[in-house]
Formats: sequence, structure tokens, C-alpha cells
Amino acid sequence: MLLTAQANDLPVAAWLRTELEGVRVRLHRELRSELACVNNLVRHVEAFGGKMLRPTLVLVTGLATSTVGLGDPVRSAAPAGAVATGNGHPDLRQPMMAEPIVAFDQAVTDEHRILATVMEMTHLATLVHDDVLDESSVRRGGATLNSLRGNEAAVMLGDYLISHAYRLCSSLDRQWIAEMVADTTNMVCEGELLQLSNRENWALDEEVYFEIIQRKTASLCGACCAIGAELSGAGEQITSGMRRFGVKVGMAFQIVDDLMDLMGEESIVGKSVHRDLVKGKSTLPLLHVLQQSGGARLRGLIERMVASPADPADLQELRRLIAQGRGEDYARQRAERLINEALAELRVLPSGPGREFLEYLAGRVLTRKY
Amino acid sequence: MLLTAQANDLPVAAWLRTELEGVRVRLHRELRSELACVNNLVRHVEAFGGKMLRPTLVLVTGLATSTVGLGDPVRSAAPAGAVATGNGHPDLRQPMMAEPIVAFDQAVTDEHRILATVMEMTHLATLVHDDVLDESSVRRGGATLNSLRGNEAAVMLGDYLISHAYRLCSSLDRQWIAEMVADTTNMVCEGELLQLSNRENWALDEEVYFEIIQRKTASLCGACCAIGAELSGAGEQITSGMRRFGVKVGMAFQIVDDLMDLMGEESIVGKSVHRDLVKGKSTLPLLHVLQQSGGARLRGLIERMVASPADPADLQELRRLIAQGRGEDYARQRAERLINEALAELRVLPSGPGREFLEYLAGRVLTRKY
Repeated sequence: MLLTAQANDLPVAAWLRTELEGVRVRLHRELRSELACVNNLVRHVEAFGGKMLRPTLVLVTGLATSTVGLGDPVRSAAPAGAVATGNGHPDLRQPMMAEPIVAFDQAVTDEHRILATVMEMTHLATLVHDDVLDESSVRRGGATLNSLRGNEAAVMLGDYLISHAYRLCSSLDRQWIAEMVADTTNMVCEGELLQLSNRENWALDEEVYFEIIQRKTASLCGACCAIGAELSGAGEQITSGMRRFGVKVGMAFQIVDDLMDLMGEESIVGKSVHRDLVKGKSTLPLLHVLQQSGGARLRGLIERMVASPADPADLQELRRLIAQGRGEDYARQRAERLINEALAELRVLPSGPGREFLEYLAGRVLTRKY
Repeated sequence: MLLTAQANDLPVAAWLRTELEGVRVRLHRELRSELACVNNLVRHVEAFGGKMLRPTLVLVTGLATSTVGLGDPVRSAAPAGAVATGNGHPDLRQPMMAEPIVAFDQAVTDEHRILATVMEMTHLATLVHDDVLDESSVRRGGATLNSLRGNEAAVMLGDYLISHAYRLCSSLDRQWIAEMVADTTNMVCEGELLQLSNRENWALDEEVYFEIIQRKTASLCGACCAIGAELSGAGEQITSGMRRFGVKVGMAFQIVDDLMDLMGEESIVGKSVHRDLVKGKSTLPLLHVLQQSGGARLRGLIERMVASPADPADLQELRRLIAQGRGEDYARQRAERLINEALAELRVLPSGPGREFLEYLAGRVLTRKY
């Protein structure tokens, strides 16, 4: 999903595709149990597939902040017709040059790959537990786990995923990383609990909305980038900057995700829409329109929609009121501002394929289809 | 609850009471959030109170396996009428002697206290998620979290607890311990999932029942003892032995817990009873009677009880059939055999107040009231 036609032109794309396949293989291997009943459940989660945004952030930030194998891919690529010596070894009198894909491999270590897997497991755990929360019946085009097996299996499987994430993380013996992962999951839980405690609070402060999405979504993206940089040996300043990049991208991502739920079509978005409303979640376009003078009408409509199953006429009216109050435009502008701030954080990095791909990823958040 | 009149006679009791209060204080401090809504939920969990069996196992195994401050408490106690010098300092010409409580303090380190807190948090997380699983309406005499705030808050609060447990654990920078904790939570999840996949399987193999309780309950008790020993610098052999001790005590504990649910009175047990049956969980007394020639009658009764709310006459008939098939006796004998095996594991330890208290704890499992 992240690797569109445009991405394929970027030199990182082929490498990343291979790396993400490696993450999938490792994930599968790590989650394997002696118990058949556990493997059956894990299979459902693996079938989620998904965008692999979190491992991508770990790996590409690792690449972008590494001092190994960076630089202009054209410069570092082996020149066409490079001279090999008669004994089959490269001619050492030529400057050492590698294909970009080899350079990327040197920049990104097995520790990056392990943490990429840890962060995807952590994310999958939140998805599985979110299904318990949301009573969603559709997730990424497939049935959710809880609709197949009940809430109890979903709770335990989410626990199994997060437990394996910590187990894999502790195999690295890197305290800074272990603490960062646990601090982040703390933040994610706090974000979810803050959201729950504001259920059906249609007068939610915009600041609290931003605090919720920063904790529940953006903190994990920020941690992915910080960890990628830390594992590349980046200094504290670069690592902090990468964390801010991830947080801002994550916040923009969640704003757009909320827009997709509110304004999108299920067939395009690939998961249930209008779930936020049903579960009483206030999102940015709603908050913007609700605080306007004509907001009472929208509020009445929302309360009706929360109380009873969605009526197509209600949905049409909802979209009309949001368009009229410029709720969608407002949310998109906030997302764009965040992406611009995220891009500014990348300026400290040397130019090269890693930074270029991070720029692409940030821009891609704004062009998701719904 | 663990510290009965009998325990109060043991020299460890006063020390342990202080230590467990310290665990409660640390738990409270670690779970504190910037968000009021989170603190409100955490308060419910702290009110569970509970037996503190897991921290007790960490601390007392730590004491029993330490080479510091062990030995006969009478011998190490300061002799009555110890001579103080005129300047108020103890007379250094006297051999250095400490009150037993000081000796215990030297044997058990702050690492033990941290891990005692980690293991209690982990256990609390499983209780909170178990309430989602079990739809129990009563837990330790108070309302369960999910009945107060819904399943969604219970899922997230359990995640918050486990996440804080891992965070606190990683503060130690001890890889062996971090891996042990995560391996154990993996096992607990597998046990819960194995149990779920055998719901309403009244022909469950006894071996599978033992595998379920070993994973879901006993593995955590085993880890507590192994961690206590590891942190005391015990060798691999002692640490493994202590783990086996904890596993066997944990299994016996769960067998008795299952008996309490099946045969106990809610007012004595302090939490909902007959929940296992309602949720389709096969437990040892049932399995024993069901596989007898007259088991069909019990099976019919169970199926009726699972399908519709409990009828007092059904409950009476259930107890009668279990008594007739000697289901309770059988389960108690299995628990007793496990406790004897557990006690045998303690023989490698030097005699002293730590070992003595572990022996007391093991015996106490069999005398729980229901």
C-alpha cells in the first residue's frame, strides 16, 4: 500500500520490499506456538497484512540516519561496466563502490530488523485490542478476530502479541530501546483511556483531541523513528529530531484516518467507516464544525446517529453539514501543517535515498484515498 | 490473607508485612499517570488488594536462597541486653549482630522489591483481562472494573498494567530477568487461549487440564521464585529448583481455586463462584467424575446449567454428584501430591526462616477456606 507507482521510482523501494518481507517472515517465526489453537488465531492476525508503516519507519529512518552507505545513490552505484580483475575479485585500485541495495544493507543492521518486527507486533496488538474496543466488523477487508472468535480470544491474542513484542525486544539487551518501547506502550494506553473517558463528549477541547492522537497513534510512530536513528548510532539531537518527525507524521496520519472514517467509502478505505461516530469519538472535522454558531444542528444529528443505526439520509446530511462548516478542509489543513513541520525536521539529515523516502512517506499521508 | 495467626509466629512475618507495604507503595507510584482519568481507573485495581502471593514468592525465595543474612534467627538476633558504649554507639568490641529484620533486609535487595512489584502488576493485568474474559460481576468482594466501566476500559487498563510492568522491569537492565518475564507472559497467554479453545469440552483430557493450569497460573508463580533466586545470586541448579517449587505450588493453588469456584460459598471465597461452569471451563473434580461410568448424568446436568441461569436445586445436585464420584477428594489429593513435590524441592536450601516460610506458604495452599 505504501509502495505506489511513485515509490517504485525511488531507489529505496526494491530494498524496502525485501526488508518488509523479512519482517513478515520473522514475525511469523516469532509468533509460532507449540499449541495449534494459538497458531490458528495468529494466522488471522497475519492475514491483516497491512501497510507496515511502523517497520518502514524504523528501517528507513535507520537508513536515513546511518553514516554507512549513505549519499547520492547515483554516486554510490557501481559504474556501468566496472572493471573486474582477472581473478574475479573487484579491482581494488578502483574506489570501493557498491550497488545502492548493498549500501542499504550495510546501513541497516539486524537490530533494525528485529525492532521493525517488535514495532509491527506492538501495532498489531493495538489493532486486535482496538477491535474489542470498537466492535468493528470489518478490518482491512477481512473479518475481525473478535467477530470470528469473540472478545475473549481477541483480548488474549492481543496480550500474546504484546508479550512477544517485549520478548523479542529484550533479546537485544539494549536498555534504552526496551525503555522506549515500554514508555511508548504506556503512552498508547493512556491515549486510548483518555479517548474512552471523553466518549460522546462533543464539546471536547481541540487540545485534548490532539493529546489523544499524539498518545494513541503518534507516540508509536515517533518511537519507530527514534529507535531507527538510535540503532544507527545517531546522536541525541538527530534521534530527538527523528522522533519529532515520527510524531508529527503520526498525528497527521491519524487526522487523515479519522477523516477517512467520517467521509470515506468502505470499499475504498478497506475497513468499517463511521465507527468513530457510533462509538462516540469526537474527531477534528466534527469538533471544528460543532464549535461554530451553527453547530447545534450537527450536534443534534450526531446524537441521533449515535443512538440509532445509521440512516443513509442522516449520513448525507452529516457530510453536507461538515462541508458547509469547512470541517474537512480544516482537518486537512492541520494535517498539512503537521507534515510541513515533519519535513522541516528532516533538514538536519544529509540528502540521500533514505531522507528522500522519508519525505515521500510524509507526503503520502496526505494523498491517501477515501 | 496469607499472614494468618500461624504465620505471625514465623520470624519472617513482620519483615514481609513491611516489604509488601513497600510493594504497594511502589506499585501506586509507578502506575501514577499525568491523566486524572487513568488514575481513577488505577484506583479500582489497587482496591483489589489481594493476597500478594506473587511478590511474596519473589521476596521470600530471595531470602531463602540468599547467602547473606541467613541462618537461625535466634542466633543472628542481637542478644538481650547488648552493651552500648557511653557515646551511644554500639560497642564494636562485641561481635556485630543484627536484629533478624535487618538480616532479612540485607538478604533481599531493591532489585527483589522492583521485581516483586513487576510480578504483582503482571498478575493484576491478568486479573483485569480475566474479568473481560469471565464476565465476572464480583472480584474479591468489590465490583469488577468491567462492570463499572465496560470491557473497553478493562482491556486498556490491563494493557496499561502490563506495559508498566515491562517498563519497570526494563529499568533493571537485566536481560535474563526481562526474558524470563516476557517468556512467562507468553506462557500465560497460551494457557488462556488453550483454555478458551477447550470451552465446553467436557471430555477434556486431564493432561490438557494440567497443561492449561501450568501455563496460565503456575508459570507466573514459577517465574517469581526463579527470579527471587536469580537476584540472590543463586546458581542455576537452585534457581531451577525454585522455579519447579513455584510451578508446583501454583498448580496446586489453581486446583484449589477451581475447587473453590465449584464447591465454595461466595461469602467465604470473596468472589463470584460457579463462573467456570457458566463459561464452559472443565475443572479437575468435574473431569474426574465425568470419565466415570455414571458421568453421563453429571454431563447432562452441566449442559443444562451452562445453557440457563443457575437453579439452586441444580447446584445441590451438582455437589451431590461430585461428592458421590469423589471428585473433590481426587482434586485435593492431586493438589496435596503437588505440594509434597514442591516441598521436596526445598530440601536443597539451607534451613532457616526463608525456607521455613516457603514451607508454610506451600502448606497454606491446601488450607484455604471455601
